[in-house]
Amino acid sequence: MPRYALKIDYHGGAYAGWQRQAGQPSVQEAVENALSALEPDAPGIAAAGRTDAGVHATGQVAHCDLARDWDPFRLSEALNWHLKPAAVAIVAAARVADDFHARFSAVERRYLFRLIARRAPLTHDKGLAWQVLNPLDAEAMREGAAHLIGRHDFTTFRAAMCQAASPVKTLDEITIEERALAAGVEYRFHLRARSFLHNQVRSIVGTLERVGAGAWAPERVKDALKARDRAACGPVCPPQGLYLTGVGYPQDPFA
Amino acid sequence: MPRYALKIDYHGGAYAGWQRQAGQPSVQEAVENALSALEPDAPGIAAAGRTDAGVHATGQVAHCDLARDWDPFRLSEALNWHLKPAAVAIVAAARVADDFHARFSAVERRYLFRLIARRAPLTHDKGLAWQVLNPLDAEAMREGAAHLIGRHDFTTFRAAMCQAASPVKTLDEITIEERALAAGVEYRFHLRARSFLHNQVRSIVGTLERVGAGAWAPERVKDALKARDRAACGPVCPPQGLYLTGVGYPQDPFA
Repeated sequence: MPRYALKIDYHGGAYAGWQRQAGQPSVQEAVENALSALEPDAPGIAAAGRTDAGVHATGQVAHCDLARDWDPFRLSEALNWHLKPAAVAIVAAARVADDFHARFSAVERRYLFRLIARRAPLTHDKGLAWQVLNPLDAEAMREGAAHLIGRHDFTTFRAAMCQAASPVKTLDEITIEERALAAGVEYRFHLRARSFLHNQVRSIVGTLERVGAGAWAPERVKDALKARDRAACGPVCPPQGLYLTGVGYPQDPFA
Repeated sequence: MPRYALKIDYHGGAYAGWQRQAGQPSVQEAVENALSALEPDAPGIAAAGRTDAGVHATGQVAHCDLARDWDPFRLSEALNWHLKPAAVAIVAAARVADDFHARFSAVERRYLFRLIARRAPLTHDKGLAWQVLNPLDAEAMREGAAHLIGRHDFTTFRAAMCQAASPVKTLDEITIEERALAAGVEYRFHLRARSFLHNQVRSIVGTLERVGAGAWAPERVKDALKARDRAACGPVCPPQGLYLTGVGYPQDPFA
């Protein structure tokens, strides 16, 4: 069976997460249902990142095996037809080698977290960003974030239910952009690593927000990391600001 | 009665437009209901731009007269409290002179139109931009737009139901930004004038899209303008890409 990689964009608001769960709508189920409409016996699919309930994606990657030899562009068009009106879209499709695995072949995951500081409730960005009421100190957040770059035991920033074999991960990037909005300020956190622990991004951003608000000194991030204790973490921030923006492979299947 | 100016941000998707209409939800009604919750006898309000159904705002301005002497910040907070859960927010409030009029004192209106070219259906931007399927030629659109800058009879770009006394308007700016998205390309049209005719922005953007798609030569925009005939206009584009982003006054009430 020929194998295809799919690049998937979705609004996580209506889903209990990527992964198929009994009795709950999932993004995986939506995509698998669209695949079944094309080929009734299409097997299940695997994705690079199992995003949580409410988390968005602009560059999730999954692979699927199909019986027919599909032109990749026509495959994406046909899937989008069957996905309507779900807020899930196939933005690219590519034929890949039989040993390509969306999850196990991935060598990098990129996430964006959108945090908006403004007094008035969000209108256009409701459900698309985490809102706090007061502006933050971006420079202090950058100082705090610098302690997390590199290879560390991230036990502090890991959900209790995390299934990863080891809490040791290498965080390659945390960049914090500050943008003035028509009302308020947006902070965009860009994080990049080979792989992340469960809730790692939301634990890190929630902790850095405490630094930006002045409640934590930037050095406390270093102490929290060293503690290797979940209790030392700042509050985990809500899911609606988080986007899986891209997955890296030794060879980009969509290039 | 002290007079206040309000800067208002709203998602137009749920509304039949700014203006109060019997039996239809309007943004004006939402704001007036919130004002009535503060002061039951609060009179009706007037806005700088009477946006159509589905059109958004990030910088609409209205004025209101209240009996009590409100601290402007507390007024905006109280109104936002009563506006919940509507996607309408007061992002600034200011005390203004008794002769300030949100509509008649305005000397400039600024609009943004968001147009996204991509094959896959929109997810996060659904209802927030107009989608076309194929990339456009931004340089050709800029060439076409240049014919519209300045003082002209805009009869071609005016809705049949437009109530303005004269079709002669001075268009001060049309800037077209091109941004690569994770999937597709976004074109942001920025338009600025003392005032606009009914449907003028959507008629102009709809016409420029035809130029960007290669269906119209840029010079045809000049011919269409000269024709002073509604029939010479390109298709009027849909409302969900349009945002009233700001209103200018001789003195900025929110500065």
